[in-house]
Amino acid sequence: MAAIIEPRILKGFRDFLPPAEICRRNLLEKIESSFRLYGFVPIDTPALEYAEILLGKGGGETEKQIYRFEDNGGRDVALRFDLTVPFARFLAEHRAELTFPFKRYHIAKVWRGENTQRGRYREFTQCDFDIVGSDSAAADFEILHMMRNALLSISGGDVIIRINHRGIFNRFLSRLSLTEKSADILRTVDKLTKTGEEKTMQSLSELVGESKAGEILKFIGSKGGFEETLAVLTEAAGLCPETERLKYLWKFMLDCGIQDSFILDPSITRGLDYYTGVVFESFLAELPDIGSVCSGGRYDNLVGLYSKDSIPGVGASIGIDRLIAGLEAMGRLQTEKSFAVTGIAHVGNAASGSCQALADKLRENGIPCEVFPTEEKLVKQFQTAEKKGLMWLIIPDAKKPLTAPLTLRNLSKRESREGLTMEEIIRILKDA
Amino acid sequence: MAAIIEPRILKGFRDFLPPAEICRRNLLEKIESSFRLYGFVPIDTPALEYAEILLGKGGGETEKQIYRFEDNGGRDVALRFDLTVPFARFLAEHRAELTFPFKRYHIAKVWRGENTQRGRYREFTQCDFDIVGSDSAAADFEILHMMRNALLSISGGDVIIRINHRGIFNRFLSRLSLTEKSADILRTVDKLTKTGEEKTMQSLSELVGESKAGEILKFIGSKGGFEETLAVLTEAAGLCPETERLKYLWKFMLDCGIQDSFILDPSITRGLDYYTGVVFESFLAELPDIGSVCSGGRYDNLVGLYSKDSIPGVGASIGIDRLIAGLEAMGRLQTEKSFAVTGIAHVGNAASGSCQALADKLRENGIPCEVFPTEEKLVKQFQTAEKKGLMWLIIPDAKKPLTAPLTLRNLSKRESREGLTMEEIIRILKDA
Repeated sequence: MAAIIEPRILKGFRDFLPPAEICRRNLLEKIESSFRLYGFVPIDTPALEYAEILLGKGGGETEKQIYRFEDNGGRDVALRFDLTVPFARFLAEHRAELTFPFKRYHIAKVWRGENTQRGRYREFTQCDFDIVGSDSAAADFEILHMMRNALLSISGGDVIIRINHRGIFNRFLSRLSLTEKSADILRTVDKLTKTGEEKTMQSLSELVGESKAGEILKFIGSKGGFEETLAVLTEAAGLCPETERLKYLWKFMLDCGIQDSFILDPSITRGLDYYTGVVFESFLAELPDIGSVCSGGRYDNLVGLYSKDSIPGVGASIGIDRLIAGLEAMGRLQTEKSFAVTGIAHVGNAASGSCQALADKLRENGIPCEVFPTEEKLVKQFQTAEKKGLMWLIIPDAKKPLTAPLTLRNLSKRESREGLTMEEIIRILKDA
Repeated sequence: MAAIIEPRILKGFRDFLPPAEICRRNLLEKIESSFRLYGFVPIDTPALEYAEILLGKGGGETEKQIYRFEDNGGRDVALRFDLTVPFARFLAEHRAELTFPFKRYHIAKVWRGENTQRGRYREFTQCDFDIVGSDSAAADFEILHMMRNALLSISGGDVIIRINHRGIFNRFLSRLSLTEKSADILRTVDKLTKTGEEKTMQSLSELVGESKAGEILKFIGSKGGFEETLAVLTEAAGLCPETERLKYLWKFMLDCGIQDSFILDPSITRGLDYYTGVVFESFLAELPDIGSVCSGGRYDNLVGLYSKDSIPGVGASIGIDRLIAGLEAMGRLQTEKSFAVTGIAHVGNAASGSCQALADKLRENGIPCEVFPTEEKLVKQFQTAEKKGLMWLIIPDAKKPLTAPLTLRNLSKRESREGLTMEEIIRILKDA
């Protein structure tokens, strides 16, 4: 006998057993159905691309984390580490084939050789949605509106979306003559919730001196209603297109009656370079501490690396793994072992064809039904059915499975009803 | 300005633009919904695994085609090249957590560095389904039954499933004292349709001599009804459990009234080593020449490499790319540019919030609706809507979008109806 290879997977990677995979599917299907209701369309791109394309300007964290290698043809290739860079490449390559404004979503796996801390995986699903080819407030608002609806459809509770405008912060920094240090300042401010006020003050002071650090902290610390905070921002940055944009967004929220889900929060800056307009982060109202479950913003020029013509856009990304962890912590995660709750017992080999014919009657009525393939005592089949998460087991007559009356076993009550027709059973299952 | 990186993808890889991706999604959703109706459950496994796991005994074509490299931690890893090997590893690893018989499906991408001929890609989707933990005829039949239904649900025409029993062929070879050459013979016979009878005869003659080659060709050439061919096979192999199995399957087909979809074809052997029982290939009745769109069979011991205990199973795999090519050739491919056929025109920035509120009324009725984000002349918006594949555009009043009567534009007829309420529009859209 050959040696046994130990069955194991790589650290940071996961097998999804049926209950976990069903849960993920249900969640993603709900999200996707939200996207479709807004007329967003799906795309897909290769998992493997030229490393040059994915790394672009290169450097930094990405380069360390990316799975990069030489393929059999000697090409320098890598696994995608996000869906944003491939989307930028996709836009530059297919621009002429697309109709703008282009609203797309993309749900797919990405790979990063990160340290595997709690909740960090080396393979995970991203779920991105964007509107490109429009720089209007209407596009910003649609992303916020859809985000809110998609998150509400899966969270079973309230969500809070914190928004801000990168441009206003930049104007404020310019007034403090800090434009050149803005990238470092943004990164520091972005970590405020994680590191706390004291540490942020310390880091900022090192960057810009104590006095300006104090002004920055005061600016990003503005608390209050949307309009109130907007007034503070307008005072700090001056009347400008950016404050106008926020004013519009506030009006749109009021027009839709969804204003309670939004907070104008000047401390939201997003670490990433490419954002230039509104930025936002979303939180489960009952569990804000797990962090943002959906973040994004507006960018002026995503395709710059691959094309001379710029395309403005706005978009966001849902963090499925964090969302699932959050829902699980709140006890809001539906866990099902199967899509089927009804089975048909095995009553002898000869009846196996007829049992499928019986099951078809249920399936034609949209009722999933599993047929038991193995000859075993009924008691054993009841146990298997329970382990599989079924609620009902239909027991046909072994001799005349198609014509004789049927028995219906309620597995949780451990009760059987005899003498039923399939029509009666369908009615019972539909009413249950 | 930084140099532009040419946007391009690797040979053998594909971008899916919305019409192609929508088509794939629709197809996969139909297939998946068939699986769910039979109580099959989804799993997922990592794209990247230890090379040792994926290559197993190693050697041959697989080793040449696999994407294999050393990761940043110095591990010898590879991208999965099919879903069968990861499933075997999964079964060995999670055996104790699963309830048997275990019915699973797995739809995911796989990667092979193959020569990119017509219709061959280096990244493609596999769609596998199996019942493991049962060696009954009922399990064989369920796979055939589900295959047939899944294929019918997407093909829009008849399908033909050609089945055979590997064990009968082996018995026949044993009678000819050819057991030791059976692997080579199976591989040669498997290519019969591709290479033609003459060439197969030649290859077989070289292997086993002219006389036995003739007997083999005669055996696999048996044509006729299922029962007739079964009689020929029974004569050649003797009465045995394998012919019994086929007799049962034939009875089950009759009991379900689906016998016309099946042909007993002794030339179906499947090239792969691990099959030991029934084997089958499926064809679009109107386009058999594109080859099998779904193949599979029964295996005794898939997990042998990773576990000392064997698990019998039966399963199949749908070739999505080939199926799509076939449906396209038959003009049966639904191509849609969007899930939405209705849009709401942009009637000024100030109305953008109200337009989302209007769209929500449609969405709440299950009608996907796209809101136009860009300020443009109506004529231009009509053109954009047509390009996007929309059929209807709702034009609200710019001043009182929520309360004033609405206009509905039929984009294909180029007709507008004025003075409608949203309720009236919903009725028109639902009736259309």
